[in-house]
Amino acid sequence: MDAVQAANSGHPGMPMGMADVATVLFSDYLKFDPTQPKWADRDRFVLSAGHGSMLIYSLLHLTGYARPTIEDIAHFRQLHSPCAGHPENFELAGVEATTGPLGSGLATAVGMAIAERHLNAQFGDDLVDHRTWVIAGDGCLMEGINHEAIGLAGHLNLGRLIVLWDDNKITIDGAVDLSSSEDVRARYEATGWHVVSCDGHDVADVRRALAEAVADPRPSLVACATKIGYGSPNKAGTSGVHGSALGEAEVAAAREYLGWDAAPFVIPADIAAAWKAIGAKGFQTRCEWEERLRAAPAHIHTEFERRMGGFLPDDFSLEAYIDSLIAAPQKVATRKASELTLGAINDLLPETLGGSADLTGSNNTKTKSTGPLTKDDYSGRYVYYGIREFGMACAMNGMALHGGVIPYGGTFLVFSDYMRAGIRLAALQQQRVIHVLTHDSIGLGEDGPTHQPIEHVMSMRMIPNLDVYRPADIVETAECWELALKDATGPSVLALTRQNLPQLRTQKSENLSAKGAYRLVAAGADRKVVLIATGSEVEIAVDTAKALEEQGIGADVVSMPSWAHFDAQPQSYKDDLLPHHVLRVSIEAGTTFGWERHTGIAGLRFGIDSFGASAPAEALYDHFGLTAAKIAPQIVAALNN
Amino acid sequence: MDAVQAANSGHPGMPMGMADVATVLFSDYLKFDPTQPKWADRDRFVLSAGHGSMLIYSLLHLTGYARPTIEDIAHFRQLHSPCAGHPENFELAGVEATTGPLGSGLATAVGMAIAERHLNAQFGDDLVDHRTWVIAGDGCLMEGINHEAIGLAGHLNLGRLIVLWDDNKITIDGAVDLSSSEDVRARYEATGWHVVSCDGHDVADVRRALAEAVADPRPSLVACATKIGYGSPNKAGTSGVHGSALGEAEVAAAREYLGWDAAPFVIPADIAAAWKAIGAKGFQTRCEWEERLRAAPAHIHTEFERRMGGFLPDDFSLEAYIDSLIAAPQKVATRKASELTLGAINDLLPETLGGSADLTGSNNTKTKSTGPLTKDDYSGRYVYYGIREFGMACAMNGMALHGGVIPYGGTFLVFSDYMRAGIRLAALQQQRVIHVLTHDSIGLGEDGPTHQPIEHVMSMRMIPNLDVYRPADIVETAECWELALKDATGPSVLALTRQNLPQLRTQKSENLSAKGAYRLVAAGADRKVVLIATGSEVEIAVDTAKALEEQGIGADVVSMPSWAHFDAQPQSYKDDLLPHHVLRVSIEAGTTFGWERHTGIAGLRFGIDSFGASAPAEALYDHFGLTAAKIAPQIVAALNN
Repeated sequence: MDAVQAANSGHPGMPMGMADVATVLFSDYLKFDPTQPKWADRDRFVLSAGHGSMLIYSLLHLTGYARPTIEDIAHFRQLHSPCAGHPENFELAGVEATTGPLGSGLATAVGMAIAERHLNAQFGDDLVDHRTWVIAGDGCLMEGINHEAIGLAGHLNLGRLIVLWDDNKITIDGAVDLSSSEDVRARYEATGWHVVSCDGHDVADVRRALAEAVADPRPSLVACATKIGYGSPNKAGTSGVHGSALGEAEVAAAREYLGWDAAPFVIPADIAAAWKAIGAKGFQTRCEWEERLRAAPAHIHTEFERRMGGFLPDDFSLEAYIDSLIAAPQKVATRKASELTLGAINDLLPETLGGSADLTGSNNTKTKSTGPLTKDDYSGRYVYYGIREFGMACAMNGMALHGGVIPYGGTFLVFSDYMRAGIRLAALQQQRVIHVLTHDSIGLGEDGPTHQPIEHVMSMRMIPNLDVYRPADIVETAECWELALKDATGPSVLALTRQNLPQLRTQKSENLSAKGAYRLVAAGADRKVVLIATGSEVEIAVDTAKALEEQGIGADVVSMPSWAHFDAQPQSYKDDLLPHHVLRVSIEAGTTFGWERHTGIAGLRFGIDSFGASAPAEALYDHFGLTAAKIAPQIVAALNN
Repeated sequence: MDAVQAANSGHPGMPMGMADVATVLFSDYLKFDPTQPKWADRDRFVLSAGHGSMLIYSLLHLTGYARPTIEDIAHFRQLHSPCAGHPENFELAGVEATTGPLGSGLATAVGMAIAERHLNAQFGDDLVDHRTWVIAGDGCLMEGINHEAIGLAGHLNLGRLIVLWDDNKITIDGAVDLSSSEDVRARYEATGWHVVSCDGHDVADVRRALAEAVADPRPSLVACATKIGYGSPNKAGTSGVHGSALGEAEVAAAREYLGWDAAPFVIPADIAAAWKAIGAKGFQTRCEWEERLRAAPAHIHTEFERRMGGFLPDDFSLEAYIDSLIAAPQKVATRKASELTLGAINDLLPETLGGSADLTGSNNTKTKSTGPLTKDDYSGRYVYYGIREFGMACAMNGMALHGGVIPYGGTFLVFSDYMRAGIRLAALQQQRVIHVLTHDSIGLGEDGPTHQPIEHVMSMRMIPNLDVYRPADIVETAECWELALKDATGPSVLALTRQNLPQLRTQKSENLSAKGAYRLVAAGADRKVVLIATGSEVEIAVDTAKALEEQGIGADVVSMPSWAHFDAQPQSYKDDLLPHHVLRVSIEAGTTFGWERHTGIAGLRFGIDSFGASAPAEALYDHFGLTAAKIAPQIVAALNN
């Protein structure tokens, strides 16, 4: 309450209400060692109710993590303090996940729990044997993603996942019953969970409940009856204590009520010592675990550390696979190309963990080396996520945060809208999560406008730290997959076609997609035009260039699978590729919004700025004017203007 | 199956599996009159499992709607056929909602059911007394939004909402138990629903179950045990029949199995007659209703038709309110400005139906004339949506589709990601839904990057048919609200600040926001620069212009609350406002991506292309370089280059 008061901003209610429960968790159950926050076999703790960030900052400080210091805490919510408004994994080693967007933390924890069981199946109890703990509030439970997350966890019977529900009966707008009449316990039970309740302010009762949760083979919900803002004599139990500082007078009243004499940011020595002792408990356990790791066969030890470190094998290369493509060109959809690439990748990388939100046969995400991951066999490398896109995205985030696996998952590109908040969290958390998003334009045909992405590719290009790839053929698909795998610091999206595309790259070369854009075809005649295209429209650009060359108009074709990689190139490379003195033309079967960056205002932009339509793909390309026959004359007209 | 076969594309499984259930519904329960598809008191039927579109096309044709004709059906999924891949409300009068994105249809139906009870409370049983029916599949139930939708429906006890669940135990990837182990019935019961089961191929049993559902005062889930692709002797009951044509051989085998002799697209006369009779049943009921409408007091009759027609009152105007702002300028956050505007609007328009996803006090969406809508009093004009952003967005779509109300709802702008699919569906369905999205930039301050929109405003500007407004002060806020209300053909987003902004508009004028962008300040010195800004950054642009003018550099300031409205202006207006021969500079506290459209590549773009940070707003604006003191020198440097 002092940190929130100092900032005059923040959420005192949850930290005060859940302090008793968290104390029991950290004292008696959580396996951790503050001196080695990244110890692989530590329990994972996710504060899904991220607005209560002062709770975890307090716990990390008290138990002896190097950061946050008490000064960090005194600068809660100030620029450059690691004690940000909501907990951020990239700021503090003890923060396992960035939370705040409600429900996403719990869903992320489901992914951590899957990764734990998966690695346990691969490396055994000696090396992988930990739990995942979550503190969640009513908001986390009311969000739709909660249904997806607990459905998946229940189905996979993730018994090492325990959710502590801050059952305080308060939301921001007032009492929970203002907006919900649900029997939460019954809902969790209906989904295969074990449910136990306790008085969140009775330490013995909390301990009993946690013991029951640990003992039960199912995932557990522990309903902790608490009073929000406990200790604040005049505001506890009201929505007024949720998201505002108590005010000086009420802080003083709370000190009085709690019998707390110490000044703000002063921890009495006896209390500091008791917490340090709690923090020291895990040291011995961690040392024993390290002994077991050292005692393991060398190749296991090495492999485990490689996997948990997120390093690809030194000899990982798709060169042989790409050589085989060059040797025998083929016309396939890029979703199929992705499947073929994944066949090679999954054989080389045991850490890939695939899946799809019930579109396996459409996303082409399953390969022969990835058997299903089930509650009876967690060693499988393929998750049937069900019709749970957002849940899948957050679970993948949790897998990546846990470490030891590289998650990828598929759905239709248009449904990136369902999980956009999860994709953004992967980018913010700097996690290697790979989204295989197929059916990436009107080229999917008959399913019509509800299923046809228009703004999706462009709108994801502007999410910071997200790499969006739209490969033009089977070779670019392999190149983009390679780039996605090699970037350990952020997520990637692969936008892939339903329809077949010719192989445009038939010469052996370096990874040209790494530059983001490159000259695929050089003008024959005197260059007047540069055609810039992505994905399935590169073929159309090539045809358009031919039509222009037939009229003596020289046209380069530039394939641009990644805007982000291109933006990172030296200006000289960009100027050479897209010179300002020629007519620059973009062709992409999506919004033209944003293409001014590469064409200039004076250039031409061919795309679709309305919703799509239901018809076979060829009919749609013609209808929306995206054919060489319709584009070339407009370029000629512009040149003659 | 013939239409899917002819298209060689589509989903035969659901229409064949649910044909029996739908027959009972349309024969014995659904209140409709094909000769007046828009009859206000008709039952609403939503095919949430929209991939099964051939089911509704068949039903509409058989019961006598003018469209689709049998020729339309024979052209299923072809360009210009109203029988699109998924049902579209703008193509066929009998399609109440555009569906396909799973789960959204059911959530939309919840909004329809709310609108029905709300209008019933306002206009009485004589005029408003109908049900909302839904056919949903496992996908609709597994999606996260299902939790939000049924939670809201259960809480509001929407007893006139009945969901027919196609319980066929199949998803695309295979059996449902591949990805789910949930007890669906128990989950619905936990959420306050009545649940009844039936054999979906036993007409008498379906009839019994529907009768029970109608009789129960709670919202009902009718679990219909069906066989997907019923009638296909070799493929029924498998995922293979879900999303592909049966193939000629299996179509022939199904004909044999079902004893169906007629050729494709030929309806035997006796069957056609029987269905026409079903379609004719509602005629009398509709005539009686019209008599009641005519018998109502004239002002009720007129008002009811105005409301259902979606027309604002002829005398609706915010002029007096805006005059009062001009008379007494004030510095307020635009979220607060929105609340003040809403105060005026809600007094003038009884059809507004507001709400918030548990951020009422932050979104400032509640005004004194909007009391809560509860299960005990549906006449209230404010919905406490709970922490259910996506559910709120879809419910609002349903309200707008139902007609008679204008829904608006609030959450933080960053959480538009949670409901983006719902916002897109409002745009696609051409519905007047108004999203009040506050805390629209780093200006929200300490909550940090999880809560700070960066790409959100720009990424919504590219959704077709969505108007995104970012007003700069209290006057523009009122203007943007007026534009949003007057556009009956699409949704609007109002991006509003948490922080206070000075009133920049102090002269009486027409609605300048209607032009999308306008010259707020004309250069004093010789014009060298045009500063373009939106929302809270217009104040910064004004300060920057002052700094430049002090150095003798003339600078216009253009406020651009709406890109879409500006794009619609004549080229001459655009060229006058943003001439190409001067340095154009954009200032917006979000991604710079896309601003090249207005600045040209040679212009300058000030914004934020990374994630935000946690600190007080002023510190963040300085940190990210968005102050006049930091911007002006860079403009001077660019001019001197």
